[in-house]
Amino acid sequence: MVVVMKERASDAEVQAVIAHLVERGMDVHRSSGAARVVLGVVGSGKVDRGLVALMDGVHEVLRITEPYKLASRTFKQEDTVITIGDLKIGGDEVIVMAGPCSAETEEQVHATAAAVKRAGAKVLRGGAFKPRSSPYSFQGHGEEGLRMLRAGADAHDLKLITEVMDASQIEVCAKYADIFQVGARNMQNFTLLRELGRGRTPVMLKRGIAATIEEWLLSAEYVLSGGNSAVMLCERGIRTFETSTRNTLDVSAIPIVKELSHLPVFVDPSHGTGRRDKVAPMARAAAAAGADGLLIEVHCDPDHAWSDGAQSLFPVQFERLMAELRIIAPAIGRSICLEPMARRGWAR
Amino acid sequence: MVVVMKERASDAEVQAVIAHLVERGMDVHRSSGAARVVLGVVGSGKVDRGLVALMDGVHEVLRITEPYKLASRTFKQEDTVITIGDLKIGGDEVIVMAGPCSAETEEQVHATAAAVKRAGAKVLRGGAFKPRSSPYSFQGHGEEGLRMLRAGADAHDLKLITEVMDASQIEVCAKYADIFQVGARNMQNFTLLRELGRGRTPVMLKRGIAATIEEWLLSAEYVLSGGNSAVMLCERGIRTFETSTRNTLDVSAIPIVKELSHLPVFVDPSHGTGRRDKVAPMARAAAAAGADGLLIEVHCDPDHAWSDGAQSLFPVQFERLMAELRIIAPAIGRSICLEPMARRGWAR
Amino acid sequence: MVVVMKERASDAEVQAVIAHLVERGMDVHRSSGAARVVLGVVGSGKVDRGLVALMDGVHEVLRITEPYKLASRTFKQEDTVITIGDLKIGGDEVIVMAGPCSAETEEQVHATAAAVKRAGAKVLRGGAFKPRSSPYSFQGHGEEGLRMLRAGADAHDLKLITEVMDASQIEVCAKYADIFQVGARNMQNFTLLRELGRGRTPVMLKRGIAATIEEWLLSAEYVLSGGNSAVMLCERGIRTFETSTRNTLDVSAIPIVKELSHLPVFVDPSHGTGRRDKVAPMARAAAAAGADGLLIEVHCDPDHAWSDGAQSLFPVQFERLMAELRIIAPAIGRSICLEPMARRGWAR
Amino acid sequence: MVVVMKERASDAEVQAVIAHLVERGMDVHRSSGAARVVLGVVGSGKVDRGLVALMDGVHEVLRITEPYKLASRTFKQEDTVITIGDLKIGGDEVIVMAGPCSAETEEQVHATAAAVKRAGAKVLRGGAFKPRSSPYSFQGHGEEGLRMLRAGADAHDLKLITEVMDASQIEVCAKYADIFQVGARNMQNFTLLRELGRGRTPVMLKRGIAATIEEWLLSAEYVLSGGNSAVMLCERGIRTFETSTRNTLDVSAIPIVKELSHLPVFVDPSHGTGRRDKVAPMARAAAAAGADGLLIEVHCDPDHAWSDGAQSLFPVQFERLMAELRIIAPAIGRSICLEPMARRGWAR
Repeated sequence: MVVVMKERASDAEVQAVIAHLVERGMDVHRSSGAARVVLGVVGSGKVDRGLVALMDGVHEVLRITEPYKLASRTFKQEDTVITIGDLKIGGDEVIVMAGPCSAETEEQVHATAAAVKRAGAKVLRGGAFKPRSSPYSFQGHGEEGLRMLRAGADAHDLKLITEVMDASQIEVCAKYADIFQVGARNMQNFTLLRELGRGRTPVMLKRGIAATIEEWLLSAEYVLSGGNSAVMLCERGIRTFETSTRNTLDVSAIPIVKELSHLPVFVDPSHGTGRRDKVAPMARAAAAAGADGLLIEVHCDPDHAWSDGAQSLFPVQFERLMAELRIIAPAIGRSICLEPMARRGWAR
Repeated sequence: MVVVMKERASDAEVQAVIAHLVERGMDVHRSSGAARVVLGVVGSGKVDRGLVALMDGVHEVLRITEPYKLASRTFKQEDTVITIGDLKIGGDEVIVMAGPCSAETEEQVHATAAAVKRAGAKVLRGGAFKPRSSPYSFQGHGEEGLRMLRAGADAHDLKLITEVMDASQIEVCAKYADIFQVGARNMQNFTLLRELGRGRTPVMLKRGIAATIEEWLLSAEYVLSGGNSAVMLCERGIRTFETSTRNTLDVSAIPIVKELSHLPVFVDPSHGTGRRDKVAPMARAAAAAGADGLLIEVHCDPDHAWSDGAQSLFPVQFERLMAELRIIAPAIGRSICLEPMARRGWAR
Repeated sequence: MVVVMKERASDAEVQAVIAHLVERGMDVHRSSGAARVVLGVVGSGKVDRGLVALMDGVHEVLRITEPYKLASRTFKQEDTVITIGDLKIGGDEVIVMAGPCSAETEEQVHATAAAVKRAGAKVLRGGAFKPRSSPYSFQGHGEEGLRMLRAGADAHDLKLITEVMDASQIEVCAKYADIFQVGARNMQNFTLLRELGRGRTPVMLKRGIAATIEEWLLSAEYVLSGGNSAVMLCERGIRTFETSTRNTLDVSAIPIVKELSHLPVFVDPSHGTGRRDKVAPMARAAAAAGADGLLIEVHCDPDHAWSDGAQSLFPVQFERLMAELRIIAPAIGRSICLEPMARRGWAR
Repeated sequence: MVVVMKERASDAEVQAVIAHLVERGMDVHRSSGAARVVLGVVGSGKVDRGLVALMDGVHEVLRITEPYKLASRTFKQEDTVITIGDLKIGGDEVIVMAGPCSAETEEQVHATAAAVKRAGAKVLRGGAFKPRSSPYSFQGHGEEGLRMLRAGADAHDLKLITEVMDASQIEVCAKYADIFQVGARNMQNFTLLRELGRGRTPVMLKRGIAATIEEWLLSAEYVLSGGNSAVMLCERGIRTFETSTRNTLDVSAIPIVKELSHLPVFVDPSHGTGRRDKVAPMARAAAAAGADGLLIEVHCDPDHAWSDGAQSLFPVQFERLMAELRIIAPAIGRSICLEPMARRGWAR
């Protein structure tokens, strides 16, 4: 912590601040410049910065340590690689997770799983519990949806990621899913994060639409501090003044987070844009900026999807996107595997 | 819904859109202008606007009904007044709820409750379960804190409002509180909102820091649609680019919400600004703009508060603020009651 | 400036940073804590903070002096009061400037000037050069408009404020106006600001819709540093994600600016909201929060205004607002003068 | 325009709105649904939407035509290609413009021009008139700087782009530059835009940090409507709540603008991020998302740059970035030319 005194601060005011800090167990180093006094404050005591800022003669109080520990590169320098069976997340390969917004029917899940597998996805995404802004919208099939998704994933040798909306759903989701997704609206649902920290199932933590990168990493810290080190982050758009897109996908968050943290960073261009025709450009941008993976909505028949149809890719669009990503990946020293089936060619 | 076709849309494209809409149970009225065709779409069918927007020849799809019903002035024209014993919220009197961020000790709760009562507050606020951005911060006393708060409220003839962070805490909180507060981070915790809708305890719903007014009213709709009609709204600052204050208190939300909805609107200037010296100006502004009430952090000894000390008022500051509010209230045809005790004068 | 080193920074890295700073004429005070080194940097040398931030081992570089000087309370502690004839701006009286968006006809200017004078305004506002987002909108009458406005102001003993859009318009505007307004879009038109600094005509500097308070004060500094000390600031709404209002009026900017600067602060609730029915609540809020004055659009016949009709008050609405403001002003120790004419009653 | 009436609107209210519109020369088509009446309004009359929105019984007024014409794809469907000598902007090749923030010395300009040419840039960028937030910062060399830049460009067969800050600088800049840049702060300096529209020099119009895409295209319309059709757009970051980067580069603006407009779209990752180490990831992202070109700050010796050193690339970093971009370009069916000199290899 650094305390910057006002230019006109009296010596008595400076002394009062120093006394306040020393009382609370801190070491204080005083720098007296021509214009003002600056106090460097270090130590393991407990000080409320806001209160110091209100003391007489104080101009500003600056924080010098990021408030998260386990999530930071300072704590762990090498990239975290999360292993789920034969899948490695956070390594050289850009991992693509794809599938429908929600499980609707057996047929829809199977057809979509088959399509995303053929194009090169490694993980099937799909929801059974849906958080909806309106109480009058479709809320998901619950456990029956989870069962469908698991069957679809197994039939096509895919891992499964699904959203957990509340701590009370962890138990049932754990029976089916390989990865738990925490949605943007739940990024600061601390009860849920704490529970997920007690388990060992990998967690994909989406960024809240108004969350700073620091708050996002603090939420990751909730899970990590509980003992679960398998945390992935997912940028999905922030809220800005621009209304042409539903949210503004913060592509620059990718290199920023890669610098501050060792955790893998994904991007969800489907929710970030809300429009099918903008998904491919933003997916390419995310890969080019260095994302460790992508989370993309694909539906075997988007025009009849029960939810999010407008932002779901047709299988043929997804396949074309995967081909473009394979061109881009080497520019950042990465790869996207080509499935044997895809190598033999896939009849459209 | 209104579908605006592109200027160059062909007649076949227009027909395809009309067919799509009619198939889904809608009535379509076609207006052909000099430059383009506009379709007015009404009816009770189910149409995905996003999908229509992607059809060939479509320029834009506009929504014409607000997605909430029970929360709107269209549904209920007169102001909602919530009655809790002898307290009426949403009527002529501007209701002030005040107290500490969290219950710390019996003494702190009692001293603070006494102070806010003397100055004219009608409800004691205070937390026992605290949502904190960092897992390393003080998280509240739990049920023991609730017990302290209830005792403090009872001793000074105040009602009690406290925050419920998770559906699992409703039962215990219901034993002590008169009003449940839903925090800004939980504004879209739909599991929690749904549970609160099943009860009859009044709910104070804070606006999320990045929530539009429409989303806020949709969250109120979750509670209302469950059968609980006692919902109050509380503006507490939105996230903007400005960093001089922690959040930007959206004072204009007050008249906007009063127009769109019949629910009472409160303002929390403590969290909205994060700085004790900015609380009074913003509380005055909120009252002048027509707020039905205020939620203010007051602490008997802010310099030693365990949390939020920097934004908590000293009792003497709170008393002065209440006096200023009594001057302002008549400008908008309202009042703030003067307690008999305060009328006799309160030694500082 | 404070340089915060990384926890793992080597001594060689610390030494390199110190050498870099000392070379550029700075004094460096080193504080070595348990976890990291912090350097307090003072002096009058020239250092590029961005470059220091990129040096090996550096975690963060923090600025400790606000970049403006003449605009700050550190430089001048007492409030600036601007005197124009018998008018004092920034003193005890809340000054209201009112009038139409633009001068349309002699009759319109006169009728509006008469109405705002009767209700208690001290300054007539009105535009002759209009900045419009679209090149196809009405752009103002130019000098002929200025002449109408001056005549209207003179006939009713009002001062005149009008917008200067470009340095090339200063000369002609100076022949008619008492106060120059710089619009939000021109807040960083440095050529214009520099020219205004060379003159002695008081300047009302509107805040850009995306300008931080610091940038706003830096723009004031451009005028002040040229030698013109008569600068007023005007908050008129910032751009946020909320779309219910055209902009979000940042009421909290009032107490913040009053703390940071000695310059008078106005609020324009007409442009801040864009809607006539929201002007009065926000004008009351601004006064209650401590604004030194208000800038309000009033039109003798808003339904036929050539521009901004939807946000212009009818004379009778303006009169009612002035009455409400007279109730509020004493709450903050201020007044709003009642005109002799108004005291005698004004037939509607 | 579409007028949506309130659910409870009376027939008299509907008739009054229709009369208001018809009086002003519009055709009105009435659609009566079960719940409410919707009016489709077409024609070439002049109506103030804001005023209609305030009429009794009106719920909302929706605009259905974008307010710009010449800048839109509706007006011109094929991509605009701007030709400057042998350079084609907006075609298959991704055009890179690179160089220092400002011209400092002959040597600096020449060394930097040589470096960017070798790596594949086609246009030299550099400033002689610098807009600076603080009046105390370096403001540029003026005409002497322009002369240096022209000489540097000519010596290395590059075109030259430079910023024009005010209409009064157009004449002198026209003697040296091939392309005029309008900075973000001047995006709505309508006096300047109007003057640039009268000339034939191509204009690069940067997006204001708080400008919506619609406002940006409206500013382009100012130039186009004056008769100058050679307009390029440049995204350079928007202001959001996130403070990790100076601005948030809105990569999604690229595909959005390509859909709405026929004008070429550039991206400036240097100003968009403000940090040298984030320039390459964001430049790659922009190319992958479909940008027609990039504007990048490169300096022969960034550590001693007079301005913007922290966001300027070293020549070797720029060369590596160009190599990465050559890998990415084919993914979107584009190319980046390899200079003969570079093909022969360039000793580092």
